[in-house]
Amino acid sequence: MVKVLIVYASDHGGTEKMAQAVAEGVKLVPECEAELKRADQATIQDLLSSDALLVGSPVHMGSIDWRIKKFIDTVCSGAWMQDKMIGKVGAVFASGAGYGNGGGGCELTMLALLNNIAELGMLIVPLPKNTPGYQAAGLQWGPYGRAHAEDLSPKGLSEEQLISSRNHGKNVATVAKALKGIQVFA
Amino acid sequence: MVKVLIVYASDHGGTEKMAQAVAEGVKLVPECEAELKRADQATIQDLLSSDALLVGSPVHMGSIDWRIKKFIDTVCSGAWMQDKMIGKVGAVFASGAGYGNGGGGCELTMLALLNNIAELGMLIVPLPKNTPGYQAAGLQWGPYGRAHAEDLSPKGLSEEQLISSRNHGKNVATVAKALKGIQVFA
Amino acid sequence: MVKVLIVYASDHGGTEKMAQAVAEGVKLVPECEAELKRADQATIQDLLSSDALLVGSPVHMGSIDWRIKKFIDTVCSGAWMQDKMIGKVGAVFASGAGYGNGGGGCELTMLALLNNIAELGMLIVPLPKNTPGYQAAGLQWGPYGRAHAEDLSPKGLSEEQLISSRNHGKNVATVAKALKGIQVFA
Amino acid sequence: MVKVLIVYASDHGGTEKMAQAVAEGVKLVPECEAELKRADQATIQDLLSSDALLVGSPVHMGSIDWRIKKFIDTVCSGAWMQDKMIGKVGAVFASGAGYGNGGGGCELTMLALLNNIAELGMLIVPLPKNTPGYQAAGLQWGPYGRAHAEDLSPKGLSEEQLISSRNHGKNVATVAKALKGIQVFA
Repeated sequence: MVKVLIVYASDHGGTEKMAQAVAEGVKLVPECEAELKRADQATIQDLLSSDALLVGSPVHMGSIDWRIKKFIDTVCSGAWMQDKMIGKVGAVFASGAGYGNGGGGCELTMLALLNNIAELGMLIVPLPKNTPGYQAAGLQWGPYGRAHAEDLSPKGLSEEQLISSRNHGKNVATVAKALKGIQVFA
Repeated sequence: MVKVLIVYASDHGGTEKMAQAVAEGVKLVPECEAELKRADQATIQDLLSSDALLVGSPVHMGSIDWRIKKFIDTVCSGAWMQDKMIGKVGAVFASGAGYGNGGGGCELTMLALLNNIAELGMLIVPLPKNTPGYQAAGLQWGPYGRAHAEDLSPKGLSEEQLISSRNHGKNVATVAKALKGIQVFA
Repeated sequence: MVKVLIVYASDHGGTEKMAQAVAEGVKLVPECEAELKRADQATIQDLLSSDALLVGSPVHMGSIDWRIKKFIDTVCSGAWMQDKMIGKVGAVFASGAGYGNGGGGCELTMLALLNNIAELGMLIVPLPKNTPGYQAAGLQWGPYGRAHAEDLSPKGLSEEQLISSRNHGKNVATVAKALKGIQVFA
Repeated sequence: MVKVLIVYASDHGGTEKMAQAVAEGVKLVPECEAELKRADQATIQDLLSSDALLVGSPVHMGSIDWRIKKFIDTVCSGAWMQDKMIGKVGAVFASGAGYGNGGGGCELTMLALLNNIAELGMLIVPLPKNTPGYQAAGLQWGPYGRAHAEDLSPKGLSEEQLISSRNHGKNVATVAKALKGIQVFA
């Protein structure tokens, strides 16, 4: 089996819904399983036993949620010290209010998540623009769920917005399966 | 007089419209004048004689237009070598198709523009979230004009979207005027 | 008096040393005072009563320390909601091991710090390249203290490296003093 | 054969040396060939016929060289429109003066290069920290060659600094070979 670990934090349920959709996508790929963990529950054992890692965060003040950052600083850094994730597969997703029609800081948020993935030495899976669902909720770095209307009133994530998350999970599982057992970094 | 230089590139007229709105905003501030230049026309003399610099670019493949980059590499770098812009005032804006509802790379585009401003040693004026027009076309780094619909069909910039650009120009002129003649970096 | 608030987190004392040097620089400017707070001690009252805000962080996995992020998410966001920091002055600094001679993620770390400053609507003070101390410890976004040698052995921050921090504090205080009482955003 | 295309621009020969070292690394992998092209010579045919793409740029004012950006805007964008690079393998490298010991803008430069790779829908190969040569010239996003001393006097790239580039090329070729013929995005 190929194991895909999905770590997330959520305030009002938006990022959690995306995480669940990512997990559904993973399970569409034969021989792939998804493990969902809240950031305060994920351990270094979860990382070490996984073939791929997806991290999702709400956007807060233009960067990742502090609970995700605590997971990165206190759990991921241990795996980084030991070079244990090198050559595995990684990807990210985010949700936010998105006030202003310019993404509201979601790009730098995804890059802060990806910086952890890159530091760990993992191959990064982007979100190709032809991915189903990209139009409603996509950025080149990963799915972005915008949970509020233009006037900042909460509207939640629609089914249509979750499609890109599902496909992102499927993509990551497909790549991890293709590379399973292959040493990509000599 | 306080002189605000506005340098831009444009493909289909979107960024140019924003540049003109920025210029209108500058002129709302007494004793402030705006000078509009296309990127291939702006000279180092334009930079040296200005009190503030606004640079605007279309988003192409998640970063700035190559004509803007040529202006930065071949004109701004000369002013950088001589420390001639230090303590002046700078800001940015961008327009793009915005496919995917996540900004389409506009944040990294604005940061590439701002990196030039920071390297020049200029004070950076962001776009406060209470700025009129922010809701329709705003990111914390500056106005972002999204010129296409969700399905990527061109729709152009609306009057409503140009309001944040006008206010951005006014803000930059106000800051430049307040700091005129004051040596902020000893 | 012009009050400059300096908020930081520190693991081995590097960022704390930089914060103290920043505070020394602030005090070199007549009528300016510095207040130093660890991230877990800073309150929204500290923010509201300040004229300028400097935030400093160690670099962890290419982004800010989670304690700084907690301060941003739980304290700064309250001031953001109320538009209370708009038009004040902000700046950042960071320290890190710097393995690999490419900054080790310090640039994205500073940008995550600056994203908070921009969201708050504050004017951003960069670090001009002619600032004394820039050569030993400077990036265009702010001072960067590299506390380890090439082989990652800890060597601490030298006096020479702290000079840019001192000047950064002085610059921020000078700008805040010049703008005190002036409404820069109409 | 697996074909790895390497596109670069160079001012004083630093990035060109890195590009050649990347090509040497590619050729160390059996059945892999490297094609080196200057940015103004690379065509869309070069892109379409390649299995992997590496783009390298000097750092100018904290972002990519305008000639590289012209290649991205005028050549890569065509492949992007047609979804022709999705599922291929991509990576980046950069060289710069590096004044100030904080990378001098190389991280945002690499991210501007990577934004193009991500927009094209390509898998991203980072530079794992255990890569030989990382210590002398490595950032998590790719090799970074610092060609000047602390006082900005040019010193060129040493043999030691080129090792990470050689290994980066080898890594990219290895990944591209492992994925050749596998459809990673459904």
